[in-house]
Amino acid sequence: MRPPLPHRFETDGAAIYRASFAMIRAEAALARFSPIEEMVAVRMVHAAGMVDLAPHIRFSPGAAEAARGALEAGAPILCDARMVSEGITRTRLPAANRIVCTLHEPAVPAIAARLATTRSAAAVELWRPLLAGAVVAIGNAPTALFHLLNLLQDPQCPRPAAIVGCPVGFIGAAESKAALMDTLPVPAIVVDGRLGGSAITVAAVNALASRQEI
Amino acid sequence: MRPPLPHRFETDGAAIYRASFAMIRAEAALARFSPIEEMVAVRMVHAAGMVDLAPHIRFSPGAAEAARGALEAGAPILCDARMVSEGITRTRLPAANRIVCTLHEPAVPAIAARLATTRSAAAVELWRPLLAGAVVAIGNAPTALFHLLNLLQDPQCPRPAAIVGCPVGFIGAAESKAALMDTLPVPAIVVDGRLGGSAITVAAVNALASRQEI
Repeated sequence: MRPPLPHRFETDGAAIYRASFAMIRAEAALARFSPIEEMVAVRMVHAAGMVDLAPHIRFSPGAAEAARGALEAGAPILCDARMVSEGITRTRLPAANRIVCTLHEPAVPAIAARLATTRSAAAVELWRPLLAGAVVAIGNAPTALFHLLNLLQDPQCPRPAAIVGCPVGFIGAAESKAALMDTLPVPAIVVDGRLGGSAITVAAVNALASRQEI
Repeated sequence: MRPPLPHRFETDGAAIYRASFAMIRAEAALARFSPIEEMVAVRMVHAAGMVDLAPHIRFSPGAAEAARGALEAGAPILCDARMVSEGITRTRLPAANRIVCTLHEPAVPAIAARLATTRSAAAVELWRPLLAGAVVAIGNAPTALFHLLNLLQDPQCPRPAAIVGCPVGFIGAAESKAALMDTLPVPAIVVDGRLGGSAITVAAVNALASRQEI
């Protein structure tokens, strides 16, 4: 028996990106987006591996510009999960922006117990000193987004520049994102409904971080 | 004007899991799975926020058992991306299993240049000393899976116990997973087609890691 031939595959990373983005632009319904929104949506679709994500992506007016402007001005990025904070591509960041995930800080379990809430929601309490002008990236926990919305009901609470709010799942995800877009305490980018997740959230941040697509 | 009422939401993490898994079992097509496969599929659907993921999940015969057995025997988990390695829940692991992601090791760029391939594929070269009996978790890069399949064409190459192969996207993802399931060098779990990603991969590993669902 002859040994099998090796599998052949594209090995040029930039070429893979270019071909992927071209395929998304050919297949996905992107006409309703502004140019900056389109670049963000393409990368979110790419991360999901699903052109049917596009109809679920929603930007409040000026949200993409607000998030990009904040990043270029050096805003920190506040993440609800390590999969989000670890996924952000450092080399795309315009100002060596600080990336923060407080979920595993030692204080979190006690805060969660005191507030009778999840650890993901309790971790948001630790964002307060960094919240003014920050970019928030929530890709996992609906309770983190709900908790942040409740904090922002206090007019004294510092305002982030924008929220990328894409928690995923079956309990609270759709509701938390609807609450964000209905109340809109700050500009926001969401994936409506159950879809979302850390990879899609990271993709949005990575797209907002750099004007260069690849 | 009265201040707005705070958003109310479920704050009991275990209750959120229970309700989510019950909703998935009510909505998703899971009848074709064995009991262990069903537990893995439920968690993958949960991570995707999409019951329509279920028809795309495929197990080779005995793959779930092989992966769980390896983890319980202390196998390391070899991951193609930091989002995968960071997402695995340490407390669910049965043997404090080592979690390895070689993507950012200093040797990788030079290996990628020498082999004229992607960094993700080059990083797989560094798995060799750990490959025997390991659980492989590929959630991002089709090129990592293709490269591993090419390594495994050499009968002298050590065999992992199982591959969770869920790279995502538009270029090479479907093809790499089809190649895995067609050649099946070791037992494998995949999401067919373009869908996949780090969160779904992590969910499969987290489900395999523990017999306790929540």
